[in-house]
Amino acid sequence: MTKPTDRSKIIRSPNRAHYDAESLYRVLDDGFLCHVAYNYMGSPVIIPTAYAREDDVIYIHGAKKNRMMNSLLDQGQATVSVTHMDGMVLARSAFHHSFNYRSAVIFGKPFLVEYLDEKNRVLELITENIIPGRWQEVRKPSAKELEITLVVGIRIQEASVKIRAGSPMDDEADYELPIWAGEFPMKLSYEQPITDNAGISDLKLPPSVKNLLD
Amino acid sequence: MTKPTDRSKIIRSPNRAHYDAESLYRVLDDGFLCHVAYNYMGSPVIIPTAYAREDDVIYIHGAKKNRMMNSLLDQGQATVSVTHMDGMVLARSAFHHSFNYRSAVIFGKPFLVEYLDEKNRVLELITENIIPGRWQEVRKPSAKELEITLVVGIRIQEASVKIRAGSPMDDEADYELPIWAGEFPMKLSYEQPITDNAGISDLKLPPSVKNLLD
Repeated sequence: MTKPTDRSKIIRSPNRAHYDAESLYRVLDDGFLCHVAYNYMGSPVIIPTAYAREDDVIYIHGAKKNRMMNSLLDQGQATVSVTHMDGMVLARSAFHHSFNYRSAVIFGKPFLVEYLDEKNRVLELITENIIPGRWQEVRKPSAKELEITLVVGIRIQEASVKIRAGSPMDDEADYELPIWAGEFPMKLSYEQPITDNAGISDLKLPPSVKNLLD
Repeated sequence: MTKPTDRSKIIRSPNRAHYDAESLYRVLDDGFLCHVAYNYMGSPVIIPTAYAREDDVIYIHGAKKNRMMNSLLDQGQATVSVTHMDGMVLARSAFHHSFNYRSAVIFGKPFLVEYLDEKNRVLELITENIIPGRWQEVRKPSAKELEITLVVGIRIQEASVKIRAGSPMDDEADYELPIWAGEFPMKLSYEQPITDNAGISDLKLPPSVKNLLD
């Protein structure tokens, strides 16, 4: 990872900015959904997709002809964004309302993951990043499934992390106002699983699902 | 809104694609966080930000010198993405794992919201889209605060919506396997608010917060 250049340098609220690998990896490892941008006919296009990080590489996958992933490979550059919404920050003034969040914007170099065993390994990484323990519970990919799957790594070249946490910051005079202020935390939570009854019945919930429910 | 052109047409799983305004507005009105892309020094940059929709316009705001918003205005085009993660789809095979989601990718024309009363109105829209009822509880923006706030509308020109819902779709043979499959729903949920004790004490939780907690 290089130093931030103009495109990744955070201008607004620079006190919330981080550029070190540790801060970046912490944000990435707390999520599994990213937004990827590429240029198409002169416009940026944004596509949401699942990912996993390993060292300084973010892995994504898709169908063999996936336009986003093929465009990334053609263009030799990728922009990836990961955002965790941690809560609302409710101030006494409308102006100072904000969010608590952790977000990362990454610029990287895409490369093709070519060999089937390496594809298989990366797909396990992605699956395990979403739901730990699931890989060993399921029917593994066949050679044909691996062949029709496109796996792309994005080597992180430059990145910025922005984090806001904690209580609202109001103007001095507004602290006298009788207006409730505080943090309103949010998180992505799991609800009761819905069993698919199309197959064998009476199967117990697997450990992977149970662990996330707890 | 025009018909989808090549840049917004969905190629993968076209059965999940929608191009009508009603489907789009439903996805937009269910959220308040979008990702906006713009080009900077030849790379797309992605920035998460809050929004509200009114008719065929998505409104965002930021500081007067916000680079993302000024770049959108300079370039005369904006790409916006809104993604709702509704759950995991756990199949019997690794290959058929998926997510249930609703996502929209929008291409639009940015314009500056110039007059202070219109800025004020749009900031109310954005605040109310995030937490209904909050606007009337707080100290409203001063003329100076409105002046240093940049408000941008993005008139939707072209958009695609992609939705997946329901149970996993496995290969015929895999339904015989003794592997639990189903949906694992997820949602963004609110947790207990944390009062900011820096101001007047013993204020009750306001209706805006209580309503989201219920």
